Amino acid sequence: MTQSWVNSAQRIGADLHLELSGPGGRRAALTRALREAVRSGRLAPGTRLPPYRSLAADLGVARNTVADAYAELVAEGWLTARQGSGTQVADRAEPLCRAERTPAKTPPPRARGPRHDLRQGTPDASAFPRAAWSACYRRALGAAPNEAFGPGDPAGRRELREALTGYLARARGVRTEPDRIVVCSGFAHALRLLFGQGAGGVLRGPLGVEAYGLEFHRGLLATAGVRTVPLPLDEDGARVDLLERERAVLLTPAHQFPTGGPLHPERRAGVIDWARARGAVVLEDDYDGEFRYDRRPVGALQGLDPERVIHLGSVSKSLSPALRLGWMVLPERYVEPVLAAKGEREAWASVLDQLALAEFIVSGAYDRHVRRMRQRYRRRRDRLVAALAVHAPQVAVTGIAAGLHAVLRLPPGTERSTLKAAAWQGVALDGLAAFRHPEAEATAGDGLVVGYAAAAEHAYGAALEALCGVLPPG
Amino acid sequence: MTQSWVNSAQRIGADLHLELSGPGGRRAALTRALREAVRSGRLAPGTRLPPYRSLAADLGVARNTVADAYAELVAEGWLTARQGSGTQVADRAEPLCRAERTPAKTPPPRARGPRHDLRQGTPDASAFPRAAWSACYRRALGAAPNEAFGPGDPAGRRELREALTGYLARARGVRTEPDRIVVCSGFAHALRLLFGQGAGGVLRGPLGVEAYGLEFHRGLLATAGVRTVPLPLDEDGARVDLLERERAVLLTPAHQFPTGGPLHPERRAGVIDWARARGAVVLEDDYDGEFRYDRRPVGALQGLDPERVIHLGSVSKSLSPALRLGWMVLPERYVEPVLAAKGEREAWASVLDQLALAEFIVSGAYDRHVRRMRQRYRRRRDRLVAALAVHAPQVAVTGIAAGLHAVLRLPPGTERSTLKAAAWQGVALDGLAAFRHPEAEATAGDGLVVGYAAAAEHAYGAALEALCGVLPPG
Repeated sequence: MTQSWVNSAQRIGADLHLELSGPGGRRAALTRALREAVRSGRLAPGTRLPPYRSLAADLGVARNTVADAYAELVAEGWLTARQGSGTQVADRAEPLCRAERTPAKTPPPRARGPRHDLRQGTPDASAFPRAAWSACYRRALGAAPNEAFGPGDPAGRRELREALTGYLARARGVRTEPDRIVVCSGFAHALRLLFGQGAGGVLRGPLGVEAYGLEFHRGLLATAGVRTVPLPLDEDGARVDLLERERAVLLTPAHQFPTGGPLHPERRAGVIDWARARGAVVLEDDYDGEFRYDRRPVGALQGLDPERVIHLGSVSKSLSPALRLGWMVLPERYVEPVLAAKGEREAWASVLDQLALAEFIVSGAYDRHVRRMRQRYRRRRDRLVAALAVHAPQVAVTGIAAGLHAVLRLPPGTERSTLKAAAWQGVALDGLAAFRHPEAEATAGDGLVVGYAAAAEHAYGAALEALCGVLPPG
Repeated sequence: MTQSWVNSAQRIGADLHLELSGPGGRRAALTRALREAVRSGRLAPGTRLPPYRSLAADLGVARNTVADAYAELVAEGWLTARQGSGTQVADRAEPLCRAERTPAKTPPPRARGPRHDLRQGTPDASAFPRAAWSACYRRALGAAPNEAFGPGDPAGRRELREALTGYLARARGVRTEPDRIVVCSGFAHALRLLFGQGAGGVLRGPLGVEAYGLEFHRGLLATAGVRTVPLPLDEDGARVDLLERERAVLLTPAHQFPTGGPLHPERRAGVIDWARARGAVVLEDDYDGEFRYDRRPVGALQGLDPERVIHLGSVSKSLSPALRLGWMVLPERYVEPVLAAKGEREAWASVLDQLALAEFIVSGAYDRHVRRMRQRYRRRRDRLVAALAVHAPQVAVTGIAAGLHAVLRLPPGTERSTLKAAAWQGVALDGLAAFRHPEAEATAGDGLVVGYAAAAEHAYGAALEALCGVLPPG
């Protein structure tokens, strides 16, 4: 049985042949045939499908059969249905894995998103504490002096810097004072402020970085003209003993990103000694320091020497990336240069959200939220480990003592194909290779970086199931 | 009568001689003597004054006399009093006018601020609609889908772009659609996105600019390697007829900043013709388009040709600079390049504030607020004009048909000295010279740029009085 129609929405004539065959009834056959047409590219993204009535008449099936097939494919993410514009092929011609993507020129369709979200880097968006945050926002706005609504201090609101001073001391062992904190829009903004862009920055390269890390950060540094030198990773973390003429080093000491271990205590001491001896500075990316599960807390490296470490944090993992709030804890000599780089007035971070965050911290709501999320993420991590033990015992899982992601070690040569299989099953995640510094000598092997925080609670089970289904056999 | 003490707070021995003479009682004499000591620099900023008791004993006056003198000077801004650290000389060794300042390295002490705030560029911070905004924020957060709390679309929240599309069409005559709007942190962020910084941007220079404008913007463009070419101003606005090989031009068509007139209709048409003929683009800085008083509304230039004009706006004047929210309305061909420059995810503007602003606009609260502020600013403008007519009839005032500031024309050669006098009276405002492009051929003469929005309602009368007191005689 075949059917053809003109793809009028695309203003391109196109014949399409659907074979309604195979197991199951006509509905299953039609669903399969349409899915295959999209997957193979015969039906291009954006193509408008014919109305139920026309297709049903042409195929000689009931209208409900077509409606059900469309609905199932919408649920699976192959098609989209919008009021007024009918059913279309979804806009995802590219596989969803980041390992292979080039920088997106158009925004990814967030509202739809992948079917199974196992991407690292974001917390569970469904867990944002809306009521508590709104209440803090309202209280903070009510209590703020009038000048809070005028031009902002580029250091950030004093209320927030005071709250952070206390919180970071208590929760992360950071030793500082409000005048050494500068509020920013997140980690990338901090890097931009420190290294400038084009013109000279506060710091200069060459900058030692871990052999595995975010390509986004490396790209940003390259744009600023900063040369990055990869440090190999071993079981004790980054080989900081290999640092030589670098002027600074960027580390994730509490939980190496993405491979997952803490920096060994001797290496922690070693990198501080190096910085002191060479007049260098250590940048500490404390991106998920609040989330630890099995091992004793790893305090901030900054506590070892506040004059040699720039401590960088944000609420992007602990609360939400939607707030665009982060902070820099600076050695005294960098405070003025960073403020000069930031400008005369606050031009970036929302002052009102800063006030709300101060209230959120001071009122104890932040601690309560972090505690709740820590329990939730720990349960998810445990479910991941349990699911792998049952369905893919051949896969080793590492880096699970802390954070919001784990690394699944794969047999050599299987990462790329596993990512492809995952993409076609609608499982969005990253491969280890995507994080490797292009000049790194050794590789960390094949692996998947599985974020267990991003999915909503109700969707996590299905995501795990889909993940297990695409892992290579042992 | 003289008195000396050791300036122990500064760890500098210092003798100070106070002459208690002149009209009035001892309290007036002491107040005058202390004020003069601070003004002349004999008492340096930060110097701690002796306790009431000691000074009273040494001078042979009652303790209350000293307390009253201190209190009066605190109220005037010469001294500061803080719990625990006694009374000190205020930290304002520099005059407060911007005409002479170099970029601040440390944040200005916002909490204190100048005694009389007549600076241009900011709205009345005391008029922020706290309750209405908080209510919109809460409603918006309650109604938002979960994905709003995840990584943000770099174009900005769709809710906000839809609200802006309708609002800008209605209020400013902007013709656009949500997909052509990109949300940003304000005007400076928009400039950075368009011209890049260091590396190549979306647009390139040379860029025509008005001969008078914000030095901050010129500096930002220079850092990005963009050459700016000043266009002379006359009674019809910028001489856009002189544009030649520039690739783009940046204008304030609704209300030239800072001199104050609208661009003549023939010039409006002319600059569009130029852009079409040369394949160039017009950047429209619509910084205070909502605030017009006596003349018919001047619609956005963008409405003449949405493919040749980039329309830039923000809430910094209409609502508050503390929100860090602005927008770019783009010709279609620039949308993808601007999004690519912004990055894969929203890294700047608070997504939650974006949602709140969408609700604020859609609910009608934004219109109500703008209407209320328009009435308030109009009354202030009228008070300024009336006060000048009575106390300084020799001073012409221009640029008053719209906006949040006026220009007071001064006799040649008096701007600098007037600014100094203003600074010493605690009146913060700018001189015209501070806005002049260094390569501009002609000058707009001597003048003061008087912002009538920044002061709180209760403080405006005193600010006007102080202003009239420092104007040069006719």
